Amino acid sequence: MTKTTFVEQLKEGDRFDDLFLVKSVRLSETKAGKDYLILTVMDRSGELSGPVWDNVEACHKVCRAGEFIRLKGMVQAYRDKPQLKVDSVQEIDRNEVDLADFVVATTRDPQQMAEELQRLVRSVKDPFLRKLLNHFFKSGAIWDRFQMAPAAKGIHHAYAGGLLEHCLSMARLADMLAGHYEGIDRSLLIAGALLHDIGKVDELAMEIGVVEYTDRGRLKGHLVIGSEMVAAAAARISDFPPDLLVQVQHLILSHHGRQEFGSPIVPMTVEALLLSFIDDVDAKMNLIEQLRRKMEGGAMQWTEYQRSLERFLYLGGFEEKEVAEETNTPARQQSLFS
Amino acid sequence: MTKTTFVEQLKEGDRFDDLFLVKSVRLSETKAGKDYLILTVMDRSGELSGPVWDNVEACHKVCRAGEFIRLKGMVQAYRDKPQLKVDSVQEIDRNEVDLADFVVATTRDPQQMAEELQRLVRSVKDPFLRKLLNHFFKSGAIWDRFQMAPAAKGIHHAYAGGLLEHCLSMARLADMLAGHYEGIDRSLLIAGALLHDIGKVDELAMEIGVVEYTDRGRLKGHLVIGSEMVAAAAARISDFPPDLLVQVQHLILSHHGRQEFGSPIVPMTVEALLLSFIDDVDAKMNLIEQLRRKMEGGAMQWTEYQRSLERFLYLGGFEEKEVAEETNTPARQQSLFS
Amino acid sequence: MTKTTFVEQLKEGDRFDDLFLVKSVRLSETKAGKDYLILTVMDRSGELSGPVWDNVEACHKVCRAGEFIRLKGMVQAYRDKPQLKVDSVQEIDRNEVDLADFVVATTRDPQQMAEELQRLVRSVKDPFLRKLLNHFFKSGAIWDRFQMAPAAKGIHHAYAGGLLEHCLSMARLADMLAGHYEGIDRSLLIAGALLHDIGKVDELAMEIGVVEYTDRGRLKGHLVIGSEMVAAAAARISDFPPDLLVQVQHLILSHHGRQEFGSPIVPMTVEALLLSFIDDVDAKMNLIEQLRRKMEGGAMQWTEYQRSLERFLYLGGFEEKEVAEETNTPARQQSLFS
Amino acid sequence: MTKTTFVEQLKEGDRFDDLFLVKSVRLSETKAGKDYLILTVMDRSGELSGPVWDNVEACHKVCRAGEFIRLKGMVQAYRDKPQLKVDSVQEIDRNEVDLADFVVATTRDPQQMAEELQRLVRSVKDPFLRKLLNHFFKSGAIWDRFQMAPAAKGIHHAYAGGLLEHCLSMARLADMLAGHYEGIDRSLLIAGALLHDIGKVDELAMEIGVVEYTDRGRLKGHLVIGSEMVAAAAARISDFPPDLLVQVQHLILSHHGRQEFGSPIVPMTVEALLLSFIDDVDAKMNLIEQLRRKMEGGAMQWTEYQRSLERFLYLGGFEEKEVAEETNTPARQQSLFS
Amino acid sequence: MTKTTFVEQLKEGDRFDDLFLVKSVRLSETKAGKDYLILTVMDRSGELSGPVWDNVEACHKVCRAGEFIRLKGMVQAYRDKPQLKVDSVQEIDRNEVDLADFVVATTRDPQQMAEELQRLVRSVKDPFLRKLLNHFFKSGAIWDRFQMAPAAKGIHHAYAGGLLEHCLSMARLADMLAGHYEGIDRSLLIAGALLHDIGKVDELAMEIGVVEYTDRGRLKGHLVIGSEMVAAAAARISDFPPDLLVQVQHLILSHHGRQEFGSPIVPMTVEALLLSFIDDVDAKMNLIEQLRRKMEGGAMQWTEYQRSLERFLYLGGFEEKEVAEETNTPARQQSLFS
Amino acid sequence: MTKTTFVEQLKEGDRFDDLFLVKSVRLSETKAGKDYLILTVMDRSGELSGPVWDNVEACHKVCRAGEFIRLKGMVQAYRDKPQLKVDSVQEIDRNEVDLADFVVATTRDPQQMAEELQRLVRSVKDPFLRKLLNHFFKSGAIWDRFQMAPAAKGIHHAYAGGLLEHCLSMARLADMLAGHYEGIDRSLLIAGALLHDIGKVDELAMEIGVVEYTDRGRLKGHLVIGSEMVAAAAARISDFPPDLLVQVQHLILSHHGRQEFGSPIVPMTVEALLLSFIDDVDAKMNLIEQLRRKMEGGAMQWTEYQRSLERFLYLGGFEEKEVAEETNTPARQQSLFS
Repeated sequence: MTKTTFVEQLKEGDRFDDLFLVKSVRLSETKAGKDYLILTVMDRSGELSGPVWDNVEACHKVCRAGEFIRLKGMVQAYRDKPQLKVDSVQEIDRNEVDLADFVVATTRDPQQMAEELQRLVRSVKDPFLRKLLNHFFKSGAIWDRFQMAPAAKGIHHAYAGGLLEHCLSMARLADMLAGHYEGIDRSLLIAGALLHDIGKVDELAMEIGVVEYTDRGRLKGHLVIGSEMVAAAAARISDFPPDLLVQVQHLILSHHGRQEFGSPIVPMTVEALLLSFIDDVDAKMNLIEQLRRKMEGGAMQWTEYQRSLERFLYLGGFEEKEVAEETNTPARQQSLFS
Repeated sequence: MTKTTFVEQLKEGDRFDDLFLVKSVRLSETKAGKDYLILTVMDRSGELSGPVWDNVEACHKVCRAGEFIRLKGMVQAYRDKPQLKVDSVQEIDRNEVDLADFVVATTRDPQQMAEELQRLVRSVKDPFLRKLLNHFFKSGAIWDRFQMAPAAKGIHHAYAGGLLEHCLSMARLADMLAGHYEGIDRSLLIAGALLHDIGKVDELAMEIGVVEYTDRGRLKGHLVIGSEMVAAAAARISDFPPDLLVQVQHLILSHHGRQEFGSPIVPMTVEALLLSFIDDVDAKMNLIEQLRRKMEGGAMQWTEYQRSLERFLYLGGFEEKEVAEETNTPARQQSLFS
Repeated sequence: MTKTTFVEQLKEGDRFDDLFLVKSVRLSETKAGKDYLILTVMDRSGELSGPVWDNVEACHKVCRAGEFIRLKGMVQAYRDKPQLKVDSVQEIDRNEVDLADFVVATTRDPQQMAEELQRLVRSVKDPFLRKLLNHFFKSGAIWDRFQMAPAAKGIHHAYAGGLLEHCLSMARLADMLAGHYEGIDRSLLIAGALLHDIGKVDELAMEIGVVEYTDRGRLKGHLVIGSEMVAAAAARISDFPPDLLVQVQHLILSHHGRQEFGSPIVPMTVEALLLSFIDDVDAKMNLIEQLRRKMEGGAMQWTEYQRSLERFLYLGGFEEKEVAEETNTPARQQSLFS
Repeated sequence: MTKTTFVEQLKEGDRFDDLFLVKSVRLSETKAGKDYLILTVMDRSGELSGPVWDNVEACHKVCRAGEFIRLKGMVQAYRDKPQLKVDSVQEIDRNEVDLADFVVATTRDPQQMAEELQRLVRSVKDPFLRKLLNHFFKSGAIWDRFQMAPAAKGIHHAYAGGLLEHCLSMARLADMLAGHYEGIDRSLLIAGALLHDIGKVDELAMEIGVVEYTDRGRLKGHLVIGSEMVAAAAARISDFPPDLLVQVQHLILSHHGRQEFGSPIVPMTVEALLLSFIDDVDAKMNLIEQLRRKMEGGAMQWTEYQRSLERFLYLGGFEEKEVAEETNTPARQQSLFS
Repeated sequence: MTKTTFVEQLKEGDRFDDLFLVKSVRLSETKAGKDYLILTVMDRSGELSGPVWDNVEACHKVCRAGEFIRLKGMVQAYRDKPQLKVDSVQEIDRNEVDLADFVVATTRDPQQMAEELQRLVRSVKDPFLRKLLNHFFKSGAIWDRFQMAPAAKGIHHAYAGGLLEHCLSMARLADMLAGHYEGIDRSLLIAGALLHDIGKVDELAMEIGVVEYTDRGRLKGHLVIGSEMVAAAAARISDFPPDLLVQVQHLILSHHGRQEFGSPIVPMTVEALLLSFIDDVDAKMNLIEQLRRKMEGGAMQWTEYQRSLERFLYLGGFEEKEVAEETNTPARQQSLFS
Repeated sequence: MTKTTFVEQLKEGDRFDDLFLVKSVRLSETKAGKDYLILTVMDRSGELSGPVWDNVEACHKVCRAGEFIRLKGMVQAYRDKPQLKVDSVQEIDRNEVDLADFVVATTRDPQQMAEELQRLVRSVKDPFLRKLLNHFFKSGAIWDRFQMAPAAKGIHHAYAGGLLEHCLSMARLADMLAGHYEGIDRSLLIAGALLHDIGKVDELAMEIGVVEYTDRGRLKGHLVIGSEMVAAAAARISDFPPDLLVQVQHLILSHHGRQEFGSPIVPMTVEALLLSFIDDVDAKMNLIEQLRRKMEGGAMQWTEYQRSLERFLYLGGFEEKEVAEETNTPARQQSLFS
């Protein structure tokens, strides 16, 4: 079954019969003692909630958070907001759905990104660092999670695949800077660019449609977790030079640039300084890119106040992209999940 | 040979023949091309420098930094400062000296401190935390270094044995607070008090008479190093609960209390909050104790401006202690090294 | 008449006939020129508002802010919020009500706290400080107000009796620290713990159910007011040593620890430093205790973002207490007012 | 005996026989066991030190800190600095000296300032505030000390009479602003201008030639002391309105403008806001005036870096004043002390 | 046609037929595809919005933002807020309306302010500065806009004519200070007071009823724009001394007092320091004046929390003014626009 | 005459006869009334001072600050510092000296840098920006001064030609970033990189061997001066789009990135954000490069504490460069001045 109706297109009065992801379901009771469900469903374009009054028990079995359902119903207005009115729900197997319909994801091609990452890893001359990178980026659970991870919760690159996109962009910048300035250890800087946020794989718990901090993530932070992950990996590579490990750990631990931003130590090597710069630049540029993609037309205009930057921005949209974005269906990223 | 002459007692014109530690030695050359040495020797009371003009080559062999020598000479005035005039130097075996003559050390009895630590460890009810503490504090290289370590470079508890003294004082405070407030995990808080600075054993390179940061110490910081050490130890204890490890790591990583003070994450558990408080209190109280010990008499008076506290302090000395401290020989701490 | 219905238990449609405290009453007029009242009543569990359409004049006479009434009515929904519908009101004498039903108060036994305070005062060795403490804590208007005062408006110990609870907790900590560190003036530190917030008695105007700043409180602050109160008391104690008074005033004036927190001078004596620490610890620990009391079960979980601490906290509830708190009636603190 | 030789005029080799104030005297001992004195004398233009080798005992009796002596001797060079060589000293009665020769004082006429102050006090319409001002400024010990006090230790108006000069300047500004803005309580603002620093009379111990903080001054600060002094004075004025006292205390307590500058509360009334502004302006303008008086000629030039203002200033001197200041004798302020 | 109905007087159910300014108009479409307008009209007392269902096309032609209309209709309640119900609209020529009915303006007489400005300009002794001032304040587009400009968007003097009022107040303060302190260049200080915000004429786009930043204003800021405007004016005055121009530009560029407040350089001359002070004082005093004008009666009371000042204020109203302000019609300022 | 002796090579006792630049000369008088000169001479390696006792009048005519002299003399020790002893001085024409001997200059080839700049200018597609760049960088006084200017006084690129070197490095980074991120206006970013510090040409007065702020530079700052210079240049280019000028001015005014760093407005366009980043990176990288060039060997080591970065750095030298830098004569940069 191919999903054709997306939440953001639904208007009051619309009827639909399509696939949705159950975000949450809560059993409640009226004053009169009657059971009912409050059901929230979502797809990649938004979410919709409403009560389920009939067949509550059967419906409750089908509608479990994180599962997919086929939902027939319509959109009603309730206190000026659209509300879901459920007619029927039906269980759907996860294999029948295209995950790309349910997750906001990078617009870049995941396959291409993976290949670019491999090329970058191969270009690292230092054999120990190359082995270290292969440990994380060749295959396995970390690699699987890394590909799907957002770079942050709700700020920059906040979508599936965003972490990979961010690391690749930084690695390309690292490559440029290593060519621009004299005496930069390119292997180290590129390894730092690719590994600096590796701890996020463990700091963030990513389910379809939900990103949350893990307890461990909050109590230790992704810098320390990343530093530990790299140490564990290096321990499995024979003769990995201890000083080199300290350098990589320093890159990871110091990449927030300042202690008040959560780095236990400030960047003290050339590579660590450059890494903290390009992390900052790339994060801000992605945030701006997101703002520009939402603009209509290329003309310069003022954005809303951007709290994270503490300023208004004066931006133009990406003119030539407008055509593509004006198609009716929200853009899909099939390859990421196929 | 028993050392009887200490640097702080030497006045212009004094002759001496006693044991000293070579702090540094530098071969130099006069304009006329003649070799000479600039020798700096020290004991626990201070240091003294001067040129060596005769037997330079032989003297250079004997006077290596970190080694002990028997030195005959006198004190001269040179540009209003006392200068060492060397008559002869003689090699001395490290076993022949009493290390306590050369190192500023805690005034507390090391043996008693070790025993108190053992009692505290035994009082920890959680079996995993008790095993973890035994891993560090029973014997072995870490325990040897821990006993000798200062708690900091030049601020509080800045003397051999100071780290142990600081951790014990904190553990006693932890014990009190665990009794005072409801719902404190005493095992965890005491483990945190004893382990919070364990990374300093690796962050600081302690030679006799010199404390320096290691490269690794500067590039990672003792919080992250300590967190790693604890993880490594827990990995060797079978079935050590992962959540408990995270709690201990959180205590260590957050004990500076604020990110701008170098903690990658702020204290987020009750025990972590209390630990950061008692670390702060105990460090400041030791700093004040050092100031008070230098005062004569018990009368309240104003200290010099204390840069680390950004204020003047109004303190009285410890009256009853004055007698002991007025003896001519600088106080010795034999037991620490015997 | 014994109050059995509490605001927090009232649901839409419920009818009641019980005692309430009038929080505010406002005479208003419809567009059509008809008078009506907007009445807000409260008890210790919450408050409820609604219009009074009938017998407006008579009702207005009875319903004066700060007075108790017997109120018959029901709960209606109005714009999705519960609203008071008044059937009748009747004047009630203050002596007929149990004040504990109307005020959020400390869970500790006031009598026990008063006795503990007396023991602490008697344990103060310095005779002048003991007399000073007796001046405030033996009897009289200040003592009456002190017992009933919250320690703060809406942050820590924000309930009747909270100030006494806070000061006692601090005094016990002071006692421990005076035993732990050498050279602490225990008399002074305990006096400081008990008197540090004495100015709040004047800074805050406490009526039943309302705590507000006085003009004088806002324009001078409780630190300066407390310092003045202590000076006035000392002036009545013959031969009170001027230097000792300055020390006590310094403790009060500096106990916020830093100028940016409102202390005109920073702590400059050992006792003042310790006092500012334990004030900070005890305030934060009470805030956390309040959070933990609201949790169900003992399992660790993340709190809401705590603005005053600028962080999330990871806390477990007090398991054994849960039973008591699950009883249907909100916990009462009879002894405080009887 | 009229003083004619001033320290700042003395050059190497000069002989002199004149009056000086003993700033300090210290008995010392040579290595050889011989007693000698280290004597420091001063006048309003500077100070000079040197050893006294002969008649040590007799000389020690005469030369007590704070006393005046007739000193014969010469200036020698010692390590490139001028040193005092004493030939003889002789006791001098304080009545025989003109104090103006020994104290850096305001250039304004003290008598005129006192009269202007009286006029300002008489112009205050509120009878209670007028009485309050008369309490401080009519006569008595506080008035004597107030007239001689500097406004600060080493920053602005740092000379005898500076406090009076500063308060008068502020009162004139207060008068202007009360005329400029609507609804200013002129009586209150002028009272605030005259009383805002009254606590300095107690905070600073002023001996001839020396200004030091008192213990009490450091432990309470001049804001709180001033607030107390005003309360004590008001207590002696029958029916002094309590609210008015709180207003005056608020002016004093808040006049530093911000908590981080030591005000326990920030200005919250119109008069308090204006007072904190004019205190700031007048202090900075006096600092600048001092800089300009030291400049030669009227041309604009850059000052040294001014640490208290964190900037360089671009100033011109006071051209017409140069003539007066080029006279050989340092300017005298006879009237202040006669 | 004379406007008699003002928005702030309109209550639910009121009918009206009066002049309004169109603030905005937006063409919209119902789900059913029917066009309608959302019209917002305003006068100086407030604004009102509502849908227009009939004669949409004709109405759309008449109701253009910034134009005046005669509007017949009534006030309805819609979700508890008053809503405009339009019966008919009619085009009105701008000359037929009294602009003072539509703009919040200074309460001072514009003519008097203009004359006072001229007197101040004539009093400036330096001929070049006088010419410079005449350039801006004699006539022409800048002068026209200057007279109508608010001093700020929504903070102090935020009403038509506010900028002129603010500059005049500052110039009078400048005059006083130039008389109070020695060695102030009065010409320069008064020129600075009058010109310091001249860039706002360009930074802010002022339409009737709307004040917005221009792109240029946001991208350069009024300090730099003002500095440029002065340079351009000076370029037209023959022989304008370059150093004098730099002084005036320094006054403008530094008048925010600190870099973090947007001054690229801090005040470094006496006049620049004074200017930054009086700008700060006058802005705060106007903000307070606005608060006081809204108070009823003269009694002291606490304001709401003032975010821009980070405090509550304790203010009394202007008693004698109350009479004037209690008249039913919102105060008019005819002279500003006539 | 070719200079062969450089100040940094001169040791006590050395005689010399070579070319020097007069840095300063001051006529003084001994106590005995004899005239003498205090002469300070310099070359690119350092400076040397000493008194001139003979032929004072003739010598004074020859030795004017900023002029070149042939100086015969020797080096004496005076209070442990080398002092100049002058035997004779002789006037030298500026054309006879190689300026490169007297100025610390960039190690890059000035001719190559000029050509690279031209290529970059030609690559700017926007015709107005290209014209604007040509206005500054084609020829004329500004271009002459620009080439010789340091990028800063004593921090980064603090040597002749440093400004050009810095701007070129930034322009290359700008080029890379414009290729890396989508939707960057490359013309604008490159123009910003080349022009951002153009105001320094006016802010700094650069004489041979001396860099000082101009009065105008200090009172306005190079950001505002640069913005004015660009506006003046654009005014001469027909039809220069006003919006484009505002964009360029915004780049210049905001390039310090934050108001507290002296930018009157923060970067609000994409290009301005990127420009402030690359300015920061390039300045820090040059500072580090200077540190690395002073290191011997390539091994990692800790630098002194770097106050401008508030940290120690862990750097390795540039190994392959060491050979060149070990030559005896300080490196020369002939081409810059020939």
